[in-house]
Amino acid sequence: MTLPCRLCFHRCLSTGSSLTAILRLTHLKRWSFEAFSVKAVAQIDSAMQHLRHCQVLTRVLLPSSHSAQQLKNNIPLASACSGLLSLRWGSGSSHQGHNYYSSRGPRFRYVLTGLVAGTGAVLAYGLHHNKAEQAAASVTHTSSLPVYSQEEVTKHSSLDQGVWVTYKGSVYDITDFVAKHPGGDKILLAAGGALEPFWALYAIHGQDHVLEILSEYKVGVLRPEDCKKQEIANSTDPYSTDPPRHPALIVNSLKPFNGEPPPALLTDNYITPSALFFKRNHFPVPQVDPSKYRLQIEGLLGGTISLTLEELKSRFPKHTVTATLQCAGNRRSDMHKAKQVKGLNWGVAAISNATWSGARLRDVLYHYGFDTEVTAKARHVQFEGLDLDVTGTSYGASIPLNKAVSEEGDVLLAYEMNGEDLPKDHGYPVRVIVPGTVGARNVKWLGKIIVSEEESQSHWQQNDYKGFPPGTDWDTVDYKSAPAIQELPVQSAITQPADGSIVDSNMEEVTVKGYAWSGGGREVVRVDVSVDGGKTWHVAEFQNSEEGQKPELSPPPGQAWAWKLWEITIPFPEGAQELELVCKAVDSSYNSQPDTVLPIWNLRGVLNNSWHRVKVKVN
Amino acid sequence: MTLPCRLCFHRCLSTGSSLTAILRLTHLKRWSFEAFSVKAVAQIDSAMQHLRHCQVLTRVLLPSSHSAQQLKNNIPLASACSGLLSLRWGSGSSHQGHNYYSSRGPRFRYVLTGLVAGTGAVLAYGLHHNKAEQAAASVTHTSSLPVYSQEEVTKHSSLDQGVWVTYKGSVYDITDFVAKHPGGDKILLAAGGALEPFWALYAIHGQDHVLEILSEYKVGVLRPEDCKKQEIANSTDPYSTDPPRHPALIVNSLKPFNGEPPPALLTDNYITPSALFFKRNHFPVPQVDPSKYRLQIEGLLGGTISLTLEELKSRFPKHTVTATLQCAGNRRSDMHKAKQVKGLNWGVAAISNATWSGARLRDVLYHYGFDTEVTAKARHVQFEGLDLDVTGTSYGASIPLNKAVSEEGDVLLAYEMNGEDLPKDHGYPVRVIVPGTVGARNVKWLGKIIVSEEESQSHWQQNDYKGFPPGTDWDTVDYKSAPAIQELPVQSAITQPADGSIVDSNMEEVTVKGYAWSGGGREVVRVDVSVDGGKTWHVAEFQNSEEGQKPELSPPPGQAWAWKLWEITIPFPEGAQELELVCKAVDSSYNSQPDTVLPIWNLRGVLNNSWHRVKVKVN
Repeated sequence: MTLPCRLCFHRCLSTGSSLTAILRLTHLKRWSFEAFSVKAVAQIDSAMQHLRHCQVLTRVLLPSSHSAQQLKNNIPLASACSGLLSLRWGSGSSHQGHNYYSSRGPRFRYVLTGLVAGTGAVLAYGLHHNKAEQAAASVTHTSSLPVYSQEEVTKHSSLDQGVWVTYKGSVYDITDFVAKHPGGDKILLAAGGALEPFWALYAIHGQDHVLEILSEYKVGVLRPEDCKKQEIANSTDPYSTDPPRHPALIVNSLKPFNGEPPPALLTDNYITPSALFFKRNHFPVPQVDPSKYRLQIEGLLGGTISLTLEELKSRFPKHTVTATLQCAGNRRSDMHKAKQVKGLNWGVAAISNATWSGARLRDVLYHYGFDTEVTAKARHVQFEGLDLDVTGTSYGASIPLNKAVSEEGDVLLAYEMNGEDLPKDHGYPVRVIVPGTVGARNVKWLGKIIVSEEESQSHWQQNDYKGFPPGTDWDTVDYKSAPAIQELPVQSAITQPADGSIVDSNMEEVTVKGYAWSGGGREVVRVDVSVDGGKTWHVAEFQNSEEGQKPELSPPPGQAWAWKLWEITIPFPEGAQELELVCKAVDSSYNSQPDTVLPIWNLRGVLNNSWHRVKVKVN
Repeated sequence: MTLPCRLCFHRCLSTGSSLTAILRLTHLKRWSFEAFSVKAVAQIDSAMQHLRHCQVLTRVLLPSSHSAQQLKNNIPLASACSGLLSLRWGSGSSHQGHNYYSSRGPRFRYVLTGLVAGTGAVLAYGLHHNKAEQAAASVTHTSSLPVYSQEEVTKHSSLDQGVWVTYKGSVYDITDFVAKHPGGDKILLAAGGALEPFWALYAIHGQDHVLEILSEYKVGVLRPEDCKKQEIANSTDPYSTDPPRHPALIVNSLKPFNGEPPPALLTDNYITPSALFFKRNHFPVPQVDPSKYRLQIEGLLGGTISLTLEELKSRFPKHTVTATLQCAGNRRSDMHKAKQVKGLNWGVAAISNATWSGARLRDVLYHYGFDTEVTAKARHVQFEGLDLDVTGTSYGASIPLNKAVSEEGDVLLAYEMNGEDLPKDHGYPVRVIVPGTVGARNVKWLGKIIVSEEESQSHWQQNDYKGFPPGTDWDTVDYKSAPAIQELPVQSAITQPADGSIVDSNMEEVTVKGYAWSGGGREVVRVDVSVDGGKTWHVAEFQNSEEGQKPELSPPPGQAWAWKLWEITIPFPEGAQELELVCKAVDSSYNSQPDTVLPIWNLRGVLNNSWHRVKVKVN
């Protein structure tokens, strides 16, 4: 089943009756709060819009109030069951036609998984850590309150059934607070689960008065054994040692884990918090003991080199690069809708931006004997991960030698992401960062580097991550006929409003937000946005990100590795009943995005950079 | 007046009755000739197709035989007059709405201009030079034949009025040979004029038997004073010292000279002969005495450097690069058709490919003191030409410093084109070649190089050669809002068949030819061709160019400076009455061309890389 907007649909189920929420939000308009910023007001508007959308979806999906009631009563249980099933037995790597319930279910019902996610997330986390400790301490004084199990908390995950959350071992019923939340309905993403992973994303929650407000809603404490429940691992499951993930991630596949953040959260931050950064794993996450870690380098004149983590960190200058990574399959779901493809059903958020620190690959190769004698033969640098398939074959990929050793290529052997050790899901302890190049070549859990005359002979370099012509099907595909994807084409997408949203005709204008990026270090120079399906175009403003997050100067030409976030408010065309919002970006080479998806369709559903189109109704 | 195909339309006027030609060509199918190659046969087919197209155009444009006769009688004179007018008084730089007659007229009626064009053209020219001398010598033995003026020869420029050509002072009536010409109707391009500039493009004519065949058609000798006529220059016209140009060029503006080759000729050669290479001048061609030439270099630590031509050639290694140059306005005519733009009305051939030799800019800058101390401040390298506007301001442009000094950027201070001194129209004695970058930055007649913190402040860097959004018009344009065009986006176009051609339904298939190229050294990896307007796609074959013309190995990534020529034969869709042929290319970054032109429309009509569409009728 293809839904118009997975995020909104989920919210719709969570809220149950969104009419109530809208009434509350309408009331909220007269409510004042000293921490209210312009942004917060905008978020309320956005929340209202989402909730209106939910209301319509509820109408569409639940034709009568009778059946709506039925669904409200039955679906949560069914959903929880399917979620548990998919958690226990996994769902494999092929998630085509993956049911939304089964992917969303475990996330919300099994939220303990996410409790400590985001360990390497945001600087903001540190800011309110101490205060959080104080809050946790205050919990011990209120042991007279009832003790709830996680299961009981999980049941309260909608406005109808009450919205309960946990924080540092306490349980809060925040049903009445939802409508007052300055950040809008995003708070419902935490319903039935823990607040910590969400607060880690938004520094504002570190303030004392926020904890004070929260304390008003306290209703109990969480059963201690639930906090440790997740640590009991199934020893036969190769995925049992996978790290916990942030509950906000939309799961495309659990085993191996593949997830992306909700679009509306994605563009809240110029630097994507590590916990929200899209995750694309091919196998179980390998468990690497940093003291035993060795990086092998082959193909240089001096024979094989073996390097400890400490040597990598101490022998070479630490270099930091802000770079956006994008999966080749980003926006596959739109291509799939146009004509069936095979692959994980990514939405628009298989792309994220982070700062990466490590040794420059160039420095390491030159240090260990790379020279022109090697260059004369070598053409590629291959990477092998420590992640293995069932046959013991490691994930592998390669990049052209000139990118690997170029002074301006900025290829890193990264050991930090956003200022902390690489999270397990992102390649701890060392991964390759190849700025401007498709995610698939940014090999995680790096075990071996081979300077070679040949490309990597791995499946992922030779038979996958390639762009085939629209006329090629599985019977006619010749894997050798297309080059391995390296640099990606210019890309942009709308993250707000969501497809299928309702906008209020009294507003007379709509605010559109999104991201834009291009491969090969080509800077995005313009984003055009249309509200009439591409007939007329308006130029979006690039968003000023929070201070300190974004470099002030433009990067040198060919080194624009990071995305740009953009925003624009456009008046409605007169009398419009529906708006077809479209965005397209132009990069410094003046490449632009193709108008439609079918002419770039390919059987693997990669490289969808056609105009992103979102339809919203005017009410 | 917008014509479906300017080349064919001209041929139509030249041939008068194309029915005769078709009958002759049909007859030709049974004719054999030892020099016939597969290519020659293909060219005959192509010729037949063109002539059929001409026939239809004649019908469309000349609704009755009566009016057709009128046109035949009157237009040539009118055309000649307008041609002479535009030659004498110039046509300025703004040729929007430029009448086709006035641009084509002088070319064909004033062909002496082209007699010695292509001096720096093709190696082939040398091959048959000696033989041509012998042929010229033989002319002196036949002085009993009548003497004709150029004016008389020019009158014989159609199959109706006879096809006369001159070669080395002799006059030939080749009317009966046209249908037998192995190269098809391309021979008609020389009708009424000289053969030399065309033979210089096709080495096969250097063979003895070709001269023998030609001698059979000799009818007289050319008046000697006509050979020198063009040397009498109007000393008040700043354009009087402009060099002669090849008569096949389609003239978009005479003063300054801007011309492109006919599309069908463009893709005959992987390396475009210099005489046919598109020419884009902004001012009169400066007359440079090589012994007095000095190249100034500013912005380095040692102060201004002044370099002679000899020093440039002897002090630095000679480096050769095969690079395609494209005007930002290539394919402007198609954008103009969709919605009016301002600029020269280029067809699809404001793009050409040549080998360029010279000193590497990088070598020169480093030799004269470029170092990191300079780099710390400098961001751009500016170029000033010796060509001046009426106020004495020189043409100027700049490129980013990192492109200028990159080892892999291959930026040249070129003094040779296709193995010979730069032709006057292409920047003699020295021009910049910036591979992968828009033609406008490849400054010709280079006078000065400035290493600077700033971009060139010239009109062409600041207010022109920029891509503005589709919603920007002349009232709202903010020149600072868009970056100067540097790298160009992926491009492709169909050169055969011509738009409006007729294809024979009995053939059941159509052969489509064209070129593809991308900026920034990104290699074109695929060209998709459709015969149904883009519903289904077929992958074109890259053409094997003549031996020695094309490098055998693929260039390193990011250094694919040269175009690819392609070809494909596709069966007709069943029962099709009209075919909409479309091509689109994909480059190594998997960028592709946008589907339609309006969403990339801009007021200057630059950067048109939308799918190229050509309609042909099935008869």
